[in-house]
Amino acid sequence: MDNYPNLKAKIREINDFPTPGVHFKDITPLLEDPVTFCEAIDGIAGFFKDKKIDKVVGIDARGFLLASAVAYLLKAGMVVVRKKGKLPWDKILREHDLEYGKGSLEMHIDSIKKGERVLIVDDVLATGGTAEAAIKLAEELGGKIVGIAVLLELPMGGQEKLKNYNIKSLIKY
Amino acid sequence: MDNYPNLKAKIREINDFPTPGVHFKDITPLLEDPVTFCEAIDGIAGFFKDKKIDKVVGIDARGFLLASAVAYLLKAGMVVVRKKGKLPWDKILREHDLEYGKGSLEMHIDSIKKGERVLIVDDVLATGGTAEAAIKLAEELGGKIVGIAVLLELPMGGQEKLKNYNIKSLIKY
Repeated sequence: MDNYPNLKAKIREINDFPTPGVHFKDITPLLEDPVTFCEAIDGIAGFFKDKKIDKVVGIDARGFLLASAVAYLLKAGMVVVRKKGKLPWDKILREHDLEYGKGSLEMHIDSIKKGERVLIVDDVLATGGTAEAAIKLAEELGGKIVGIAVLLELPMGGQEKLKNYNIKSLIKY
Repeated sequence: MDNYPNLKAKIREINDFPTPGVHFKDITPLLEDPVTFCEAIDGIAGFFKDKKIDKVVGIDARGFLLASAVAYLLKAGMVVVRKKGKLPWDKILREHDLEYGKGSLEMHIDSIKKGERVLIVDDVLATGGTAEAAIKLAEELGGKIVGIAVLLELPMGGQEKLKNYNIKSLIKY
């Protein structure tokens, strides 16, 4: 069942980007339409509105496009997980597999305090490698992961990898 | 005069990042506190709330952290300007000087339609090179630049470079 056919209709599929064989889901048309953009933000924030979220963690860089507005709506702090080398202060690091290649993510050591309730936000859940790295960083700082929210979900193992967590998505493929 | 001393107090100054001699302004403590984060978003959106903004353009990547929530509040579409090689579809490109080094920014050719009213959002205005590149991209697509909004402004020539535009900032150095 697809609860958001109007959102899915705004996803542009691009073959062989960023590498041959990858079918990239371009979310920019959805973000550019104020109706679908606001509906996406309301949908994601709505899943967690009564969950007392202290910190919303946005994943570099497309996750930021959703996490900022979601954090604002949930009256939570906005935390960034960034690709290696971007954060200027004391930080922790996790390496992870990507759908295409490998990556490293970092978080400032004071971004989350022990016991804070954390929502991870990204645009896409595919293999779950990126989300898992963000989860581990937040957990290393003592955060409690309340959920993972993504705009769209691909059937590439992310749900299985993160089966102990509450994963919410608006669009499924 | 500083209208937002509580916001300025949340900026962490880092010497010699990302390159020697640069005094980097780390905005993550401000974003992580829900009070200052929401105040920053309300302040930026407030400057342009009656300006009938059609599109908010967020600049890769820290601009996204503000632009998303600002677009949501203004009921505008969210457009991304990205560093070269990140956008998957047909695009236009501008090269520009950075505070440290050179860069190239890209925008999808269908992100802004002729006559749309555009607000550019970034975290910092320094030399104005990045903002100018984003402006030129939006103008090349026919957008009308209503303003440029940043969280903080450094005395590095950006105001002079962009003196024909309406620039708003919450924090000045």
